[in-house]
Amino acid sequence: MLNYRDELDKMPSYDGVEKNYRVKVNANECTLNLPPLVEERVMNRLSHAAFNRYPNEEYYSLVEQIAKNFAVDDAQILLGGGSSEIIEKVFHAFGGNGRRVVFPQPSFSMYKIYAKAAESEGVPFDLDANFNLDVDAFIDKVHEVGASLAVVCNPNNPTGNALTPAQVEKIAASLDCAFLLDEAYVEFYGRSAVNLVAKHPNLLVARTFSKAYGLAGARVGYMVAQAAVTRMVNKTFMPYHLNTLSLATADIVYQMRDEFVPRIQMIVAERNRMSERLAKLSGVEVFPSETNFILFRTERAAELKDFLESLDIGIRYFAPNSFGLKNCLRVSIGTRVENDEVFNAIKSFTETR
Amino acid sequence: MLNYRDELDKMPSYDGVEKNYRVKVNANECTLNLPPLVEERVMNRLSHAAFNRYPNEEYYSLVEQIAKNFAVDDAQILLGGGSSEIIEKVFHAFGGNGRRVVFPQPSFSMYKIYAKAAESEGVPFDLDANFNLDVDAFIDKVHEVGASLAVVCNPNNPTGNALTPAQVEKIAASLDCAFLLDEAYVEFYGRSAVNLVAKHPNLLVARTFSKAYGLAGARVGYMVAQAAVTRMVNKTFMPYHLNTLSLATADIVYQMRDEFVPRIQMIVAERNRMSERLAKLSGVEVFPSETNFILFRTERAAELKDFLESLDIGIRYFAPNSFGLKNCLRVSIGTRVENDEVFNAIKSFTETR
Repeated sequence: MLNYRDELDKMPSYDGVEKNYRVKVNANECTLNLPPLVEERVMNRLSHAAFNRYPNEEYYSLVEQIAKNFAVDDAQILLGGGSSEIIEKVFHAFGGNGRRVVFPQPSFSMYKIYAKAAESEGVPFDLDANFNLDVDAFIDKVHEVGASLAVVCNPNNPTGNALTPAQVEKIAASLDCAFLLDEAYVEFYGRSAVNLVAKHPNLLVARTFSKAYGLAGARVGYMVAQAAVTRMVNKTFMPYHLNTLSLATADIVYQMRDEFVPRIQMIVAERNRMSERLAKLSGVEVFPSETNFILFRTERAAELKDFLESLDIGIRYFAPNSFGLKNCLRVSIGTRVENDEVFNAIKSFTETR
Repeated sequence: MLNYRDELDKMPSYDGVEKNYRVKVNANECTLNLPPLVEERVMNRLSHAAFNRYPNEEYYSLVEQIAKNFAVDDAQILLGGGSSEIIEKVFHAFGGNGRRVVFPQPSFSMYKIYAKAAESEGVPFDLDANFNLDVDAFIDKVHEVGASLAVVCNPNNPTGNALTPAQVEKIAASLDCAFLLDEAYVEFYGRSAVNLVAKHPNLLVARTFSKAYGLAGARVGYMVAQAAVTRMVNKTFMPYHLNTLSLATADIVYQMRDEFVPRIQMIVAERNRMSERLAKLSGVEVFPSETNFILFRTERAAELKDFLESLDIGIRYFAPNSFGLKNCLRVSIGTRVENDEVFNAIKSFTETR
């Protein structure tokens, strides 16, 4: 009998292939691949990559660029395999037996898994019926349970709404434990809290190339915090955890990030257009979004999901027992053509059945 | 004061850029980049990659290929970010507070770090003066300390020598704890223990694309074990820990692995030639190697390393307090031209000073 780590048997397993829908609006991905100019430079860069050598200066080159953009020291930036790995490691760094991590619910469903992986207790804090966070009550909760880490996704996934920078700062200033702000969708909101890091030694901001920069496949994210914090969190990363191809790709993408501005603007405009149209449908409640997706509630949500699947449209459905998300569906913003198709399908479902 | 995980402050930090030597024979990398035919197909594949979508079937496609090659079930294969991530996660899966991991020394220097990262006690077992492993004594040691995991690198890094398959099987059969066999260099040896997995439910074999397949930059490795074991170890991996670009690259490389046979043969031939030549130098003791590198001992090893560095040749030097490696240097096998240059430099150093 093999002697596995305590509780490992209780961790969920991740397997199963996701479906490749014709219209894939279920995973908050960027629906467009690299802009042509960027793709050309990425492919040129990859054709010169040393596949045979361990990654090296590619890491530091990207760190320098990001640090320069935020006018912080290189030592304040850590890179990870998507913000996923950043979050996993931050949970590990502040986790451990008997420690607690507080995060709102509903929010990114992985937080409770990361807490468990870090052998910590995940303590969910309920959002209200409109998915707003009562900031004072959240702060009280973090104090009350003596948490070592508080986590907020801003704007929030899967609800789409956002705290103001003042609210974020209030949390950072009020907590004496670590405060991880997951800004995976912040490019669609425009109000990042990275500038608050200088003032708040407990603030860690996680960012990603997966959403606005359309690099979900490359798995690159980063963290901005004070140097003393990054130095400690860095200890949880093993050498060579990032690969040359992804680093080189993200490096080019970051250099050329102005090329992504038009598509971010397009997605925001399409999100607003889609929200307005969906809100006019009978029996559909649309929640405000500052992201590249929209959460809405409708009776017979499970049926609607099946109907869309029958058209090879993938949308995110939440199990009836997901806190606060009963009859909710989440749709990522695609191209205008995709959005129109998704909208028309939803409209025909709500009108004819 | 932030409340970090216990002992995290005692973990070493990994930073600092490695030097790009003109002749880089310090990291056991493959000195050649992708074979031209392979490179062409890799670049073609990458030009069709969905950078914007989360990795998905790329993982399973590579798993299927590997499983088919070893005639095992898909469920017996796990992929990781290099065998590094495989090893890190196996240590985590069998580690934890109060657990012990036994591994020979000198061996891969990261084992003690992975043990610490898994909050376990690393228990080194000394190789003899010729770097041979006393298999019976090793087995006794594992029993004696009640280890949950035993780890052997075969062939061993940095010594270069190898256990026979019979010795490996004896260890697997004699232990009741998990036994991780790190076969990073096995393609240069030719005697893998993957076929023993069917018979030994405690055997986990880690393999990598970094050495013989020259993909150190892509960070792809895999593990072969019985399905019940991979299912548990898989729980330690978070979703999307591998990226599309590396998976697609490894997929093509594995499809075209016959293209790597000539260079593996070249490296083995060059290793043998280099070993013979080095052994003839006065004051140089060469240890037998079944890998793509050679360990040798010579007085004034530190001086020799500096001399080679002055020629922009990077070689691996071991600190005087590294167990058993006093005055040892490790040189990776390069091209014939590189090997000749390295040899001539060593020769001139040993003859003229």
